[in-house]
Amino acid sequence: MDKISLMIDGIKPLDERAMAEARTRQDNLTKPQGSLGQLESLSIQIAGIKADPRPRIIHKIIFTLAGDHGIAREGVSAFPSEVTPRMVYNFLRGGAGINVLGRLVGARVVVADLGVAADLEKHPDLKNKKVAKGTKNMAGGPAMSEKEAIRSIEAGMELVEEERARGIDILGTGDMGIGNTTPSSAITAVITGADVASVTGRGAGLNDEGLKQKVKVIEKAIMINRPDPKEAIDLLSKVGGFEIGGIAGVILAGASYGIPVVIDGFISGAAALLAASLAPQVKSYLIASHQSVERGHQIILEYLGLKPLLNLNLRLGEGTGAALGIFLTEASVRILNEMATFAEAGVSGKTG
Amino acid sequence: MDKISLMIDGIKPLDERAMAEARTRQDNLTKPQGSLGQLESLSIQIAGIKADPRPRIIHKIIFTLAGDHGIAREGVSAFPSEVTPRMVYNFLRGGAGINVLGRLVGARVVVADLGVAADLEKHPDLKNKKVAKGTKNMAGGPAMSEKEAIRSIEAGMELVEEERARGIDILGTGDMGIGNTTPSSAITAVITGADVASVTGRGAGLNDEGLKQKVKVIEKAIMINRPDPKEAIDLLSKVGGFEIGGIAGVILAGASYGIPVVIDGFISGAAALLAASLAPQVKSYLIASHQSVERGHQIILEYLGLKPLLNLNLRLGEGTGAALGIFLTEASVRILNEMATFAEAGVSGKTG
Repeated sequence: MDKISLMIDGIKPLDERAMAEARTRQDNLTKPQGSLGQLESLSIQIAGIKADPRPRIIHKIIFTLAGDHGIAREGVSAFPSEVTPRMVYNFLRGGAGINVLGRLVGARVVVADLGVAADLEKHPDLKNKKVAKGTKNMAGGPAMSEKEAIRSIEAGMELVEEERARGIDILGTGDMGIGNTTPSSAITAVITGADVASVTGRGAGLNDEGLKQKVKVIEKAIMINRPDPKEAIDLLSKVGGFEIGGIAGVILAGASYGIPVVIDGFISGAAALLAASLAPQVKSYLIASHQSVERGHQIILEYLGLKPLLNLNLRLGEGTGAALGIFLTEASVRILNEMATFAEAGVSGKTG
Repeated sequence: MDKISLMIDGIKPLDERAMAEARTRQDNLTKPQGSLGQLESLSIQIAGIKADPRPRIIHKIIFTLAGDHGIAREGVSAFPSEVTPRMVYNFLRGGAGINVLGRLVGARVVVADLGVAADLEKHPDLKNKKVAKGTKNMAGGPAMSEKEAIRSIEAGMELVEEERARGIDILGTGDMGIGNTTPSSAITAVITGADVASVTGRGAGLNDEGLKQKVKVIEKAIMINRPDPKEAIDLLSKVGGFEIGGIAGVILAGASYGIPVVIDGFISGAAALLAASLAPQVKSYLIASHQSVERGHQIILEYLGLKPLLNLNLRLGEGTGAALGIFLTEASVRILNEMATFAEAGVSGKTG
């Protein structure tokens, strides 16, 4: 756990002085105080994260991490595992939802193989961080070894380190992995203490019967593996996934390097639970882009104390919600930086 | 009412065929069906409005209409009327919130004087559509004559006509006018039948006492003027405002020319109530950008059957929420146009 501990040690509290200065500036911009609501508080959070009262967001990256899941064999997903590599190729060709929204918001999409259950063709834009070819079936034992769990987190951290040279002012997280709402529900149930049924949804489109089966499988996986709710690595190894560990690594590294981290939906949320279990101070670096349709997601956001920016009934993953969240975050700092103050505009203030 | 009637006659039902084709395409894009939620339905609405199954959004305009209110003398606002012309100059210099967000989303901001209570300096980017120098105090009689009410709607329509030559693929509405939440609350109460207190908020920042006074003033204005809830022109003339009538005109003209209309917050919402009262078929052209802090706004959106895209506790006006809504609408049609289909990506469909 050396690299992970080092990274966690690097996570500082937000810069109070930069936040106070940003707050003062917001209050002097040509608008009624507080009238831009969550955009104002968001800009102040970014000032704190970047220790800069006038932060800029130029370089934007979305990390979309892919992995497969042994549990997919248990009929917990509406799609077969073969779709995971196909979708990775779709990302690399620019045809997926995340590519469209990444282009729209000016964010580079970094695609990484954390554990796809196929030999992927080499591609200049594909990061090979494969831990193994898919996890084992967690309904029959641990999804991965503890060593693999650590490796998946470290691999996520490496992704951030490798991209830092090109500049990262903000990052978003995303996932691709058939079956990955199942381990995400398991992680959510164990960490938050919620009932499995209350944090398990239809994923990519399960029917009622499939949903019942999914709940049973998750309950079985938790019963068999007995993960420790206080030990994130143990939990990840027993009922997690490689891309989920990878996203936890991206989140921790982002915070450690002072980068705002925009999390996507349910899978990124489960990864954020793991990251916050390892390092509670990571929470102040998180921006919840949206409230997913997956029912466990609301419980995650409440547990982490995060208020989502959007609620558009999204449930695609890939980082699509994060892309929209990056846009709104950029909007918030543009307001902070570019609006005129009352003094500059010669506008008299409030009368009473 | 000739021009207004003509414009209303031009509002066609949405194109069902284009919507069906767009729905089919959405269902074949490389994502689980429905997984982009409200973005999918939004893209289909745009297809219907533009009668094009693959609509594009390139030319974006936000109309920010300014006007003053005689009622402001009654202590219903936290700011004095002198702020209205100052803010208009701020718009023209590019220093206001709407300028920042307009630039970010690539929307041109068209600023128009519908009834500012001052002689504004000429400016190449300021549209002079002044109906009068502010409305009269509606607590003592009608805010304007019926002729002025009609003129304000027509002036809004002219703005859309004048900009059409440069192309409008989508438009947003915005307002500036110290005191204008007061007539907006009056309009909302009369049309929806809600209690005045339930649709009256703090505007730019009233305290408790100010809020009480505002409710009393609105109740008095309605009692004295006895506006007809079924007659939008009568209602606008008695308890409305020039920029509110102008926005109603922008909305009606937008719909008439087949342009999606993204409405901002409470003031645009009151204008949308007037527009929908004159032409109920306008509703299918409306996109509610956000849910404002102003309490009457939720009642407006429910009355119009609109689901807001954002809920960020905004209450600035100017079209700032509309700018963000334009971005999300563009995102929705980009998804529709740019994502690969399952066939194109060689991804097999759902298994069960």
